[in-house]
Formats: sequence, structure tokens, C-alpha cells
Amino acid sequence: MAKPEYYVFVCSQQRPQGHPRGSCGERGAAGLIPRLSQSLMARNMHQKVSIVPTACLGPCSVGANMLVFPGEVLYKGVMADDLDSIVDSHFVNGQPLAAKVAPDAVW
Amino acid sequence: MAKPEYYVFVCSQQRPQGHPRGSCGERGAAGLIPRLSQSLMARNMHQKVSIVPTACLGPCSVGANMLVFPGEVLYKGVMADDLDSIVDSHFVNGQPLAAKVAPDAVW
Repeated sequence: MAKPEYYVFVCSQQRPQGHPRGSCGERGAAGLIPRLSQSLMARNMHQKVSIVPTACLGPCSVGANMLVFPGEVLYKGVMADDLDSIVDSHFVNGQPLAAKVAPDAVW
Repeated sequence: MAKPEYYVFVCSQQRPQGHPRGSCGERGAAGLIPRLSQSLMARNMHQKVSIVPTACLGPCSVGANMLVFPGEVLYKGVMADDLDSIVDSHFVNGQPLAAKVAPDAVW
């Protein structure tokens, strides 16, 4: 594909249940990628936004986390049902979805 | 940690030997992360640069690949012995190491 307009780095870290850090995997991260992909395809944005699963992004306690570049926008507590709104706001309209953006304090 | 100055997304994709796409894993990616970590620590940059292993970044044929944000700089054909030079140039001096930067055509 051509150079993407955006990268969405989706934390897919798994840790055992009960691990003191928890993990985005435990918080439903595995379900995010297919839903995000569907949402982008439905808006014909799938060639413009690259989805990359990653290991730990850091702030496990507020996951599931996704980090978007350019812009260095960290989305926290993401659930599958948030993804259409994030895609519409951020990738279609160019405005991060403020309600799901992590404040600097959580980094 | 505080918000990092840089993220280095290191492709850690593994595919079976002989797979037609190849993979960064086959091209030595697993050796990059500990060397990059050592190189950053030796320069006291490890709190400023976050290393994140990822799944496939796309241009498998020129791997091992690392993608740096901010800046959207893709390093291709990275070997462990390149990492000190990349760290000095990019993270200490703020200049991507041109010799290892992938041209736009490979994206």
C-alpha cells in the first residue's frame, strides 16, 4: 500500500488472568482489530489507515489502548463499540474523539 | 514513564522459513530489541525513547524494519550493528540516519 495517512497501533498484549498489571488483551483488545478493520472498510478508509498490532504500549491500567500517529493520540479504555465513533471523528473528520483520549498524566 | 520523545516500532513478525513474503523475524528482528535497548541505556536515552515490538509493518521484502514516530521515518534492512549509529544520529542528534531510511517507494 502507499504510505498510510495514519497508523493505529493497537496494543494486543496478553498477560495471565490475575496478573497485577492486567493487560489490554484481558480488556478485550483482540476484538478491536476486526471491528476497526470493518469500520475502516465501510468508510473506504482501509487504504489510508494502517492497523498494526503491538506489544505493550505502557499504561496497562487504562487499556485497551490504541496509539495513533501522526499526532501521538492515545486512546484509552477502548471498546469495540467505540470504534465507529473514533473512525468517524479522527480519520474521516480529522478530529480525535476527545472523550476517549488519554490525558498526558496516564503516559 | 513520561510521554516518550520518540517511539520506535520494531517489526517482530515471524513467518515460517520459505514463506513467500519472508519476514522481519527471519531477517534478524529478534536481535534488534535487546541491542536497541542497550544502545539507548548507554546514552541515558531509555526514558525518552519507547521501544514497541509490533506485528507486520508492511514492506517485508526490505526488512528488518523499524518505524519511528514522530516523523514517520521507516528504517529498512536494519541489522543489530546499525543500531548505535541510528541512535546517535536520530535520537541523540535529531537527524534520521539517511543511509538506512526507506524511500517512499517501498511503503
